[in-house]
Amino acid sequence: MTREVILYIATSLDGFIATEDDNLQWLDETEGEGDAGYLDMLNTIDTIIMGKRTYDYVMAHVDEFPYSDKKCYVFTTSEKGSNEHVEFVNENVVEFTNTLKQQEGAKIWMVGGAGILDDFMKENLIDEYIITVSPHILGSGIPLFKENNPKIDLYLESTTRYGQFVQMHYKVKTKN
Amino acid sequence: MTREVILYIATSLDGFIATEDDNLQWLDETEGEGDAGYLDMLNTIDTIIMGKRTYDYVMAHVDEFPYSDKKCYVFTTSEKGSNEHVEFVNENVVEFTNTLKQQEGAKIWMVGGAGILDDFMKENLIDEYIITVSPHILGSGIPLFKENNPKIDLYLESTTRYGQFVQMHYKVKTKN
Repeated sequence: MTREVILYIATSLDGFIATEDDNLQWLDETEGEGDAGYLDMLNTIDTIIMGKRTYDYVMAHVDEFPYSDKKCYVFTTSEKGSNEHVEFVNENVVEFTNTLKQQEGAKIWMVGGAGILDDFMKENLIDEYIITVSPHILGSGIPLFKENNPKIDLYLESTTRYGQFVQMHYKVKTKN
Repeated sequence: MTREVILYIATSLDGFIATEDDNLQWLDETEGEGDAGYLDMLNTIDTIIMGKRTYDYVMAHVDEFPYSDKKCYVFTTSEKGSNEHVEFVNENVVEFTNTLKQQEGAKIWMVGGAGILDDFMKENLIDEYIITVSPHILGSGIPLFKENNPKIDLYLESTTRYGQFVQMHYKVKTKN
């Protein structure tokens, strides 16, 4: 039994996680309800993985680092070492994550963004998908799923409506 | 007040309506519940629009034409006239549909496939989206939404779980 990796992310109905210019205004403007299960998810994890662009985005949009009680890994080729919040990782993301999954601990949240997520998809590293669909067709943008992923059969654990959002919680059933 | 056009269609979690080779086995194998609102939807419409490839697919997979009590238009450049079930239409799909929407009648179901749907998307001709998500990541296939659609804001009317399917019913809020 290894630790599970969760993808908890919001997407437009047409499968974009952001506009081309990293705009998330469409998400912010959507009428939600409560925290869309965010704290529940946070309570199941103790480790966070994200890409450098996502880390930079978070840092530019918050006053306080939001994940200070979690072990945070930021994948990058441009930075080394660590700061008070995160550890920068220059290793192969697949190997690093597989090692992480063998260690003791709670679940792991793969925050994104699109580049690192694609590495995870191609290697089938995600064990749970918590996808929150917003009521928009964006038309273009950064896709949640890039092309030529492996076929993955899922099991729908639950679905919950949060205002104008629909959330679907899947576990991976088979890895083909 | 014009007649509304409905898109009622099933898609994989990663937004494909069929595999590259038009295979729908992944859908057939999914554990559903009842008819996923199909008859309810059928009762709101009196007219059906589809592309020729979809028509051919339907005819190859059924013993009896399933929409004989509806007015059926099949868009094609290869066939003319009509048969006992459908009328073949060689006109511009957008102009034809806009004329249809001005006429008296119930709602119109746009069945697909991908080609004609793209025409509808680009011209923002869909008024209601009833999207049923199956628990699969197909990895590749025929996408529900092609690239460079207009941005469309939706209003979530309802969401219903049917076994392993999650259905979302949207109405178009604004057409930008």
